[in-house]
Amino acid sequence: MNKKTPQPTIIRLCSIYQLLCNLEKEGVIKVSSAELEEKTGVPSHSIRKDISFIGGAAGSKGSGYEVGKLKQRILNNLGFNRERKVCIVGLGRLGSAIIQWQSMAEGEFRIVAGFDSDINKVETIKTSISVFPSHELPDVVKRMGIELGIIAVPPAHAQEVADRLMEVGIQGIVNFAPAIIKSRRNDCFIRNMDIAGELRILSAAIEKQSP
Amino acid sequence: MNKKTPQPTIIRLCSIYQLLCNLEKEGVIKVSSAELEEKTGVPSHSIRKDISFIGGAAGSKGSGYEVGKLKQRILNNLGFNRERKVCIVGLGRLGSAIIQWQSMAEGEFRIVAGFDSDINKVETIKTSISVFPSHELPDVVKRMGIELGIIAVPPAHAQEVADRLMEVGIQGIVNFAPAIIKSRRNDCFIRNMDIAGELRILSAAIEKQSP
Repeated sequence: MNKKTPQPTIIRLCSIYQLLCNLEKEGVIKVSSAELEEKTGVPSHSIRKDISFIGGAAGSKGSGYEVGKLKQRILNNLGFNRERKVCIVGLGRLGSAIIQWQSMAEGEFRIVAGFDSDINKVETIKTSISVFPSHELPDVVKRMGIELGIIAVPPAHAQEVADRLMEVGIQGIVNFAPAIIKSRRNDCFIRNMDIAGELRILSAAIEKQSP
Repeated sequence: MNKKTPQPTIIRLCSIYQLLCNLEKEGVIKVSSAELEEKTGVPSHSIRKDISFIGGAAGSKGSGYEVGKLKQRILNNLGFNRERKVCIVGLGRLGSAIIQWQSMAEGEFRIVAGFDSDINKVETIKTSISVFPSHELPDVVKRMGIELGIIAVPPAHAQEVADRLMEVGIQGIVNFAPAIIKSRRNDCFIRNMDIAGELRILSAAIEKQSP
């Protein structure tokens, strides 16, 4: 199997993976590519192609995919079986709300460090993760082996923080700040959490699908 | 043009729309369907089909799409030119962080009301939106003409809150709680904000695309 998977295939497989996790929790055993398309927006022929790309049995037509098996195959192929360490920059309301999320601690990702430029915040915040003033970021990231970063600072500082994270070797950033940030390196990927984008899908669904 | 647009097409068009907004802010004038695929994961032939579905000029092959024009066409077709009112349930750290996001106030969506079951929180929170105890939800939603809801309560209460929102006629829900909630009505759509899902895409990108 080749090492490089095209970015669009990765995005589509992740979206399918997420749905499979949900289906598994609901106790669903089999799913068709038509159902996968309905929920993810990934066209069914792309689903079949992407799955064969990762060496998946194409799933005999009509019978659908086995949820657990397909999930496991994507998990293995995309390397989700290895826990990655995550840091968070910005310990305001949003940042501390994110730290609280227990779902993060399910084995795939672990938030191990938090940073804030406000020393008072660092000294007073109550949390189970280690917190540091921002200037210690390069040392801590290296020492703890942190690979991913979450940005939860005000929008005006988001790019600056992203640049600093990339400088110290962070390879992936989830940006919660309502600002578009750019990757200045080819080997660092950025995802923007976008609440307006989600509201927009709902808005379009109401507009186009309500009776 | 037909009123009903298939759900997968809507999801794909929204994802393209979001990218076009970003490109426009960056001053980009033209974009190819290959570039759109690279960033959104939507296969380029689907992009062409979806755009023709909403009556868009297919964009002569090779020359690409005009960013501003295509954005406007999707906006008009999916009804983004009408402001929708949004309420938020749960005024804890996450809820109050979301209210602060100025980007929400850009004309498409307006958070007009917040609810919490904790009367003390309702009485002490400092915010520019109107806040109410949860039991007033049915009245307020009707009176203010609220169409969309954001859930920012602890995961154990998410489904219960979703059910209540659907009962009072809310047609779309963005769920921030790390819990999967189900729509019990065909005419209510739910989107889950999923930070683990975003981290997963980054994780896969590192695994499959790093040199």
